[in-house]
Amino acid sequence: MSVVDSFHTSGSSPSFAPQDQPCRVAILGFGTVGSAIATRLAGSDPIPSLQLTHVLDRRAFAKRDALADRQTAASRSPLRGNIVWTTRFEDVLASDADVVVEAIGGIEPATEWIRAALLAGKSVVTANKQIVAHHGPSLLALAERQGRQLRFEPAVGGAMPIVRAISEGLAGDRLTRIVAILNGTCNAAISSMETTGCTLAQALAEARERGWAEADPSVDVDGLDARAKLAILCALGFRLRVDPPRIQTRSIADLQPADLDEARRRGGAVRQIACAAFDYGRRSLTAWVAPAIVPRDSIFGRASGSQNAALVTGEHAGEVGVFGAGAGGPATAVAAIGDLLTIARDRAAIVRAPDLSSPALITGLDRRDRIVDLTQPQEGAARVFAEAV
Amino acid sequence: MSVVDSFHTSGSSPSFAPQDQPCRVAILGFGTVGSAIATRLAGSDPIPSLQLTHVLDRRAFAKRDALADRQTAASRSPLRGNIVWTTRFEDVLASDADVVVEAIGGIEPATEWIRAALLAGKSVVTANKQIVAHHGPSLLALAERQGRQLRFEPAVGGAMPIVRAISEGLAGDRLTRIVAILNGTCNAAISSMETTGCTLAQALAEARERGWAEADPSVDVDGLDARAKLAILCALGFRLRVDPPRIQTRSIADLQPADLDEARRRGGAVRQIACAAFDYGRRSLTAWVAPAIVPRDSIFGRASGSQNAALVTGEHAGEVGVFGAGAGGPATAVAAIGDLLTIARDRAAIVRAPDLSSPALITGLDRRDRIVDLTQPQEGAARVFAEAV
Repeated sequence: MSVVDSFHTSGSSPSFAPQDQPCRVAILGFGTVGSAIATRLAGSDPIPSLQLTHVLDRRAFAKRDALADRQTAASRSPLRGNIVWTTRFEDVLASDADVVVEAIGGIEPATEWIRAALLAGKSVVTANKQIVAHHGPSLLALAERQGRQLRFEPAVGGAMPIVRAISEGLAGDRLTRIVAILNGTCNAAISSMETTGCTLAQALAEARERGWAEADPSVDVDGLDARAKLAILCALGFRLRVDPPRIQTRSIADLQPADLDEARRRGGAVRQIACAAFDYGRRSLTAWVAPAIVPRDSIFGRASGSQNAALVTGEHAGEVGVFGAGAGGPATAVAAIGDLLTIARDRAAIVRAPDLSSPALITGLDRRDRIVDLTQPQEGAARVFAEAV
Repeated sequence: MSVVDSFHTSGSSPSFAPQDQPCRVAILGFGTVGSAIATRLAGSDPIPSLQLTHVLDRRAFAKRDALADRQTAASRSPLRGNIVWTTRFEDVLASDADVVVEAIGGIEPATEWIRAALLAGKSVVTANKQIVAHHGPSLLALAERQGRQLRFEPAVGGAMPIVRAISEGLAGDRLTRIVAILNGTCNAAISSMETTGCTLAQALAEARERGWAEADPSVDVDGLDARAKLAILCALGFRLRVDPPRIQTRSIADLQPADLDEARRRGGAVRQIACAAFDYGRRSLTAWVAPAIVPRDSIFGRASGSQNAALVTGEHAGEVGVFGAGAGGPATAVAAIGDLLTIARDRAAIVRAPDLSSPALITGLDRRDRIVDLTQPQEGAARVFAEAV
């Protein structure tokens, strides 16, 4: 086709070749998530484009020595390569690490460290839903100004790629509704209650043992964790700035085995459900996190153990669903490493901070039921969610 | 935190502001998919960062005039703005369009046009699974050399964001298995058979009326469409170069209403299933497309109408599932517009061509059943898939 040559204008060749030089990664926090990421990056099956260079932890040296002991015992190192262990964030900041993975949790010093890392020209991957929910917009704006990236797939849904699904895959739709299970700990606990007939307290203790539980179980049980994640999804899906405390929550703390039996009799199952629906005309958001009875054979009823699930409705494509392992080190590490690979592929990528606005009105549930029954015909706010489920 | 200032090194500021200047889009082909994309870009609710500038179609002027007639009748234009209609690809190539959306289908001239567009410095979005399956690697390498992008989310799974889920969201895992419904037409036809008891021929005629069917139904029915999509997913998920004809296919052409009754008696449902599993140690790929009986309450049994669904298994995160509208103009347009928005956000983004290798061995089904029963205990190749379902 002769026309090809006459219009040939070669694009600018990438001057930077990430494959030639691995992306240098510092991990803040060597707990469940941080150690799972470290094991993937510096374990027996490393990822060529990513190199673990720093591990920061309050007890860095004790943890390093414990690993070294394990190494002697098993005669192979669980973490290979030349890794700097430190207790001082200044060491990470002054280092040549390209990306910082924030896995320490809590609001401070994590927020300040993310900000400092971006200012120092490093990209950041965070698993911290509270920070993204509360300070995401300003941190993303800072990242954009710095020409760096702040990515947070591990902050919502574990390995379930809901952040990318909503912010990129479904960006071509106009989303109106998000219904989801976003807290793996609660789901695992309720699953245990269903299977064994145990109490919530017993089930939570078990979840903690498996590494699915946050340090403070009330953050999970009272819906504060799911609420923060739902606020993030409202920003990504509806372009709304929603302060998490404005989302109504009902705790699952008083959930009894008898409640699960009753749900089963109605053909359903109890789940901690996070819901949000946005009316673009009225700029009205309905959002809540609460225990709900969902049909047993729905995507939510079928989510067992620490699985997360989400059903996202758009005006053009209808419903898209996604589910997967929602908690635990290996699942969260998959999400974090996906973000690291995205950064490593194109370290000069432009990531625009979202342009968010506030809803005119935020409402919650209009029924007072202790457990919302989404299997029954509903009036008002719960109706739209019942239709989705 | 004083340390912040001392390490402040500002990143390079993006010199290009996509928001200020919309991304100019040319659409090749004004059929079901092309017209759905055009309606989204130039309809009553346009997308600020995207501007439709060109529509190419063999019957461009007749279609434009038909739209104009509709406009008079309804007294509002279905397509707004200053759009150039043309029958000549040279006009698109010579234009200032930034991105070309290929929605004409077929191998030629579509492949040549994609190549020419990339050589002319334009990025490309394609819904063409056959081209991506057969020529994806060379076209992606060309795009990389040109510093442009070739994106193809609409080529697989309609609005279900499976391309991004596998190539980005789950890039942090090592995927071992993909089981999926990838052909919306077949699924819609089988669904109709289930609901109404009609024959496959009647059901396909109905699917065609709804705009879910390809021009040649045998491409869907015989599994050639799903096979091309599965080859794409093998490249994204396993980094394998798989020539689509090497994937075994069994047609659903002889599927009878009695087959569906028999499946129902076994607690299952018949679906056209596409499967691939890769053994990294032996570099052995097992892949096939065939009618299969799946449990009625599985993600596949529950996929009705033109829905697509996929269950992706990784070594680290286990199973991640995704489902959504798999065919039709509006669903495919959502995927295409998502890709356009990704390109518009960062037109200088570096997208590396994948580094693919060939499997040492490709095998198919080791059983001769006309319909593979994935609800029963299996031996050999079908077993791994039955476990996944």
